[in-house]
Amino acid sequence: EAFPALDHGFVRVIDYMGDDGAVVQAARVSYGRGTKKVSEDAGLIRYLMRHWHSTPFEMCEIKYHVKLPIFVARQWIRHRTANVNEYSARYSILDKEFYIPEPEHLSAQSEINRQGRGDVLQGDEAARVLDLLREDSERAYRGYAEMLNQDDQGAALDPNRSGLARELARMNLSLNYYTQWYWKVDLHNLMHFLRLRADSHAQYEIRVYADIMIDILQRWVPMTSEAFRDYRLGGTHLSATGL
Amino acid sequence: EAFPALDHGFVRVIDYMGDDGAVVQAARVSYGRGTKKVSEDAGLIRYLMRHWHSTPFEMCEIKYHVKLPIFVARQWIRHRTANVNEYSARYSILDKEFYIPEPEHLSAQSEINRQGRGDVLQGDEAARVLDLLREDSERAYRGYAEMLNQDDQGAALDPNRSGLARELARMNLSLNYYTQWYWKVDLHNLMHFLRLRADSHAQYEIRVYADIMIDILQRWVPMTSEAFRDYRLGGTHLSATGL
Amino acid sequence: EAFPALDHGFVRVIDYMGDDGAVVQAARVSYGRGTKKVSEDAGLIRYLMRHWHSTPFEMCEIKYHVKLPIFVARQWIRHRTANVNEYSARYSILDKEFYIPEPEHLSAQSEINRQGRGDVLQGDEAARVLDLLREDSERAYRGYAEMLNQDDQGAALDPNRSGLARELARMNLSLNYYTQWYWKVDLHNLMHFLRLRADSHAQYEIRVYADIMIDILQRWVPMTSEAFRDYRLGGTHLSATGL
Amino acid sequence: EAFPALDHGFVRVIDYMGDDGAVVQAARVSYGRGTKKVSEDAGLIRYLMRHWHSTPFEMCEIKYHVKLPIFVARQWIRHRTANVNEYSARYSILDKEFYIPEPEHLSAQSEINRQGRGDVLQGDEAARVLDLLREDSERAYRGYAEMLNQDDQGAALDPNRSGLARELARMNLSLNYYTQWYWKVDLHNLMHFLRLRADSHAQYEIRVYADIMIDILQRWVPMTSEAFRDYRLGGTHLSATGL
Ligand SMILES: Cc1cc2nc3c(=O)[nH]c(=O)nc-3n(C[C@H](O)[C@H](O)[C@H](O)COP(=O)(O)OP(=O)(O)OC[C@H]3O[C@@H](n4cnc5c(N)ncnc54)[C@H](O)[C@@H]3O)c2cc1C
Ligand SMILES: Cc1cc2nc3c(=O)[nH]c(=O)nc-3n(C[C@H](O)[C@H](O)[C@H](O)COP(=O)(O)OP(=O)(O)OC[C@H]3O[C@@H](n4cnc5c(N)ncnc54)[C@H](O)[C@@H]3O)c2cc1C
Ligand SMILES: Cc1cc2nc3c(=O)[nH]c(=O)nc-3n(C[C@H](O)[C@H](O)[C@H](O)COP(=O)(O)OP(=O)(O)OC[C@H]3O[C@@H](n4cnc5c(N)ncnc54)[C@H](O)[C@@H]3O)c2cc1C
Ligand SMILES: Cc1cc2nc3c(=O)[nH]c(=O)nc-3n(C[C@H](O)[C@H](O)[C@H](O)COP(=O)(O)OP(=O)(O)OC[C@H]3O[C@@H](n4cnc5c(N)ncnc54)[C@H](O)[C@@H]3O)c2cc1C
Repeated sequence: EAFPALDHGFVRVIDYMGDDGAVVQAARVSYGRGTKKVSEDAGLIRYLMRHWHSTPFEMCEIKYHVKLPIFVARQWIRHRTANVNEYSARYSILDKEFYIPEPEHLSAQSEINRQGRGDVLQGDEAARVLDLLREDSERAYRGYAEMLNQDDQGAALDPNRSGLARELARMNLSLNYYTQWYWKVDLHNLMHFLRLRADSHAQYEIRVYADIMIDILQRWVPMTSEAFRDYRLGGTHLSATGL
Repeated sequence: EAFPALDHGFVRVIDYMGDDGAVVQAARVSYGRGTKKVSEDAGLIRYLMRHWHSTPFEMCEIKYHVKLPIFVARQWIRHRTANVNEYSARYSILDKEFYIPEPEHLSAQSEINRQGRGDVLQGDEAARVLDLLREDSERAYRGYAEMLNQDDQGAALDPNRSGLARELARMNLSLNYYTQWYWKVDLHNLMHFLRLRADSHAQYEIRVYADIMIDILQRWVPMTSEAFRDYRLGGTHLSATGL
Repeated sequence: EAFPALDHGFVRVIDYMGDDGAVVQAARVSYGRGTKKVSEDAGLIRYLMRHWHSTPFEMCEIKYHVKLPIFVARQWIRHRTANVNEYSARYSILDKEFYIPEPEHLSAQSEINRQGRGDVLQGDEAARVLDLLREDSERAYRGYAEMLNQDDQGAALDPNRSGLARELARMNLSLNYYTQWYWKVDLHNLMHFLRLRADSHAQYEIRVYADIMIDILQRWVPMTSEAFRDYRLGGTHLSATGL
Repeated sequence: EAFPALDHGFVRVIDYMGDDGAVVQAARVSYGRGTKKVSEDAGLIRYLMRHWHSTPFEMCEIKYHVKLPIFVARQWIRHRTANVNEYSARYSILDKEFYIPEPEHLSAQSEINRQGRGDVLQGDEAARVLDLLREDSERAYRGYAEMLNQDDQGAALDPNRSGLARELARMNLSLNYYTQWYWKVDLHNLMHFLRLRADSHAQYEIRVYADIMIDILQRWVPMTSEAFRDYRLGGTHLSATGL
């Protein structure tokens, strides 16, 4: 089952290992002879979350297949505690698929948040932006295909030309083109990713993916997911001086 | 199924994710439109291994329950690319289980390998060593239990004493006492661990565990295991000057 | 300059790279043409800390030489985002140095915190514990030396014996024996370590080291140190439901 | 001192910590009482390299400022064992600087190496490719500036338009545009990076950077550099079956 994201992207779960029970099981390795059992699983999970006892959450693992625009991939890949295999544009030819925002997401630069968006563009300006994005994306692909000297079916456009190496031709494509990868991560670092990328400071386009993954989290590990919402997503941190 | 190791230890597989097919699947994310497929799975796996294209191997994950002497755990934990939850001797009381080597593994310091073993000790010397190890281990536990003020059943030895905190009392135990943990790792870093710890330079006691895990590897991912044996374990590296 | 820790340990700074200025410099890579500069360095550092924008703190690095009891080393090494070289007890002979707590740190198991200490032991019980720790530690080293067949000067105790390999003999030593290592870490992960190990839930003996390192932090990166105290050490986290 | 790379890029060393001496010093932590010293530093470094005893090399650290095309940055960032701060195109406006290959690097797709380059393009085809790359890059920037509604001096092009948010407008730029970052890494993982990226299988454009960094390595840590050339770069690995 692939969850659609943006205009051509998706998130698909390929495999996973462990669930709420595996978190609890690992935490309980610690509690052998001579201890009272923390009686309830959900309570133990909340306790671990609250006290940043994060290693039991590392005992679960999930692997996704994700299709996403390159500029989103560039933000995503900064999370180093994951395993990745990406489609190779040195080896293979990228499809003609690029991201065009919905009109309601075409925002101006924010005046207050220097790294964010403000009001939605209106009328002519919005129309012009959409046209520009579409035209330039189309043109970029035409250049790409011509340099490769290859049509949609992989046949040579001009039998007298050799075609440029793929690893070079791809640099004509713009950052809204889609790529795809397998991405595997443990539950602790997934939540770290989601906390940063489902946040209002994150760019809308990566938030779309993070939100989908939060829904998946809810189904996969409901107890952990609830504790995560309470202590990471929804919580707030008071400084010593703020107390 | 727990594979016994040394006199009281074991290795048990708790869970795993992926197999040879998952390695191949991840590698093939790269090979989309416009490429010839590497036709054979085993061949592709050998190719990845030979060229240190290691990220597809990170797509598999395995989780073990391991019981091992503390001095072995101290070597093992140096491998940072893994996830661990260990039995807590602050929280719980350690069992009276310590490692005593088989006579044939009681070796002298090597004369040539400064970090290894030489000839096996004989006769009186061997007997004396075994006696010392046993006596001192027994005595260490007696001190531990007395400081804790607790008998085997968890009852107070002396009702007028409070008993020392577990986190302090445990420091009386020696490095041959057993601990246990859950240990989870991806296939690439597992092979890195096995290469270093199944090696003749590694201490015999950790090699016992590594050898068991190599057998498990063989059953879990037979193609990867074979490539690993050929290119990592059995191979050799020639320097530029050695060529 | 070595800062003493516990009865035989120490923390010594070997080298470091960068300071508060390096954090700010890295953060400002992001702020090129078309932006207002965050005017003040301390303010920028507080901002980064508050928003968990942690990568600029990774731009500083520090390397220590630490001498510490093995049971403390076992907790410390769990922090994987560091670089370590430890004294080899396979290669070399450990000194006869073991940790004996000050009487005021000889506490009973806590009744309320299952992983901690309660009231300080008194009178006879305290005296008996100290005697036991000292005797057993002494005896462990006698066994070690006898198995090695080596005296303080490295001469054979008995010319007719070969002596047990060091990697085996060391397992007779108890967890309060001292080891030493070089430990190198970046500023972000150092603060993560300090937050967890200077905390009241951490065992007293590792807290002694963390407290020393917090003092060093204050001298090394005063602005970062202040932000750290306010937002990590002294702060508190409110859950969504607690708000 | 900035070492130029490609047409607009560079590599500049910002800071470093440690040198060959620091590697040796860390390795010797292991060799205390009861051992013969490995007498010579260069010999010890070669020994460590040959036996993959890599942790002493982690004791050195280096930090660069790098300017590089985005498609190169996408390959580079896959090396996770490093610390990065990149210029933010959400926050700031990218300069109009894009990579155009020298004619002698405009190669066709290789027939034998599916992930590489073959013969250099000639005559008209080469000219056409260069024109396309230049035109499309220029046009992409025109679209970018128009969407931002900003001229070179940061003044509004049209006072009646708000301008698109930077984080969105940048997606019109192509992968040959330049970005920049601070990149910090330890010596062991630097060599791992250089081994993979100075290799003939790596794309020419990243190899240019790796080659510069190998020259810097030579000046920084001459003994380590020599051992690296002999055992990593120049060496070869024989499989068990190849022996
Ligand atoms: C010629 C060439 C072709 C390539 N082609 C492709 C391709 O088609 N598709 C593709 O996706 N990639 C490709 N790559 C990238 C490659 O798969 C690696 O991502 C990249 O080389 C970084 O290597 P690394 O993981 O060893 O380095 P680092 O990330 O620096 O890691 C070094 C070591 O640290 C450990 N490590 C670090 N982080 C983690 C972690 N989070 N989890 C587990 N272990 C960790 C591992 O042991 C790893 O080997 C290619 C690389 C080269 C050189
Ligand atoms: C009071 C206290 C009690 C504890 N009790 C126990 C116990 O009973 N049993 C027990 O086993 N441990 C216990 N621990 C240890 C604890 O589980 C952690 O191992 C330790 O605190 C290190 O924390 P860390 O993993 O965040 O640090 P680091 O290892 O330095 O990691 C920092 C961050 O880097 C990332 N990271 C680094 N390496 C990896 C990797 N290989 N894979 C994935 N992500 C990685 C993670 O995001 C991690 O949070 C206790 C610790 C404390 C402070
Ligand atoms: C025979 C033998 C003798 C040894 N003797 C000694 C000794 O005398 N003293 C001693 O201290 N140790 C000794 N060791 C331990 C050794 O130095 C390593 O700590 C251990 O082998 C783990 O190897 P690793 O770091 O490659 O593994 P991992 O920690 O699993 O790392 C795998 C790779 O991931 C990357 N990586 C992971 N974490 C980090 C990080 N935090 N920072 C940077 N890169 C990272 C690196 O590229 C690393 O190579 C010995 C090991 C062996 C096998
Ligand atoms: C809203 C927002 C704005 C951002 N703006 C910018 C920007 O302008 N410029 C910019 O460059 N980046 C920016 N970033 C990216 C940010 O700096 C991080 O790179 C990204 O969020 C990944 O976070 P991480 O390092 O905690 O995650 P991971 O890489 O998954 O690491 C998790 C933890 O593991 C440990 N760890 C993992 N790998 C290493 C390693 N190699 N060395 C040491 N510790 C390690 C650390 O403790 C780390 O906190 C932004 C991110 C967000 C969310």
